Formats: sequence, C-alpha cells, structure tokens
Amino acid sequence: MDIRARLGKNVRKLREAKGWSQEDYADRAGIHRTYVSDIERGRRNPTITVVAKLAKPFEVQPGQLLD
Amino acid sequence: MDIRARLGKNVRKLREAKGWSQEDYADRAGIHRTYVSDIERGRRNPTITVVAKLAKPFEVQPGQLLD
Repeated sequence: MDIRARLGKNVRKLREAKGWSQEDYADRAGIHRTYVSDIERGRRNPTITVVAKLAKPFEVQPGQLLD
Repeated sequence: MDIRARLGKNVRKLREAKGWSQEDYADRAGIHRTYVSDIERGRRNPTITVVAKLAKPFEVQPGQLLD
C-alpha cells in the first residue's frame, strides 16, 4: 500500500476510535479540516513536521501513522 | 527531540550499522549524497514518500525512522 494511503487509513482509524469528527480532529491538530479530508483519502504527501502535528492529538509516536 | 533531528539520528545509526558510506547509502536510496548529509544533520523536512525511499535500503518500516 502506498505510504500516503497508509497514513490516511491510520489517521481515519485513530480519529474514529476517538469519536472525533474531521472538524474536531483538525482543531486539535491545528490544521485545516479540508486538509484532514485530503490526508484521509491519501491525497497528500505531508512533510514529517506535519506528520508530528497529525500524531500529537492521538498521543502516539509520529512513525506509528506511517506503518 | 525535533522530528528532523530524530530522523537524522536514526538514518545515521542504521547506515553506520550497515557499514555504508553516505555515498553508498545515497546510491541505494536513489537520492543525492548531499541530501543524505543534510538529513543526518536534521537540516531537512522530507515528505513521507521520501521517508519511504530512505527506509527501503535498510528494509525497515518508514515509521521506524521517525521514532
């Protein structure tokens, strides 16, 4: 699976497990909601500092979002 | 530790464990040697598709380079 698709799958799984909407999660991560939607659909190729921002609200290591 | 510094530390540790020069590793990863040097010094903020390229020669999951 392409790493962008894997990131999207992991973010969606963790977000839904928390019961957060994309909007909730976007606010917590400090990113735009449409960016969350693109990430979850594997449409983005973020840098590692953005991956760190994506991981923070879930309190997981950034690398966990890529594997 | 900043995620860029962590990536650099992990890449250097894995490369040295393989006994590869930066040049060897750059060839195996399909990236420029000076980019490897910058990565190892925490000077770069690569995208996740580049992290996947960096991980491939080591045969480790990309996420492992970030944690």
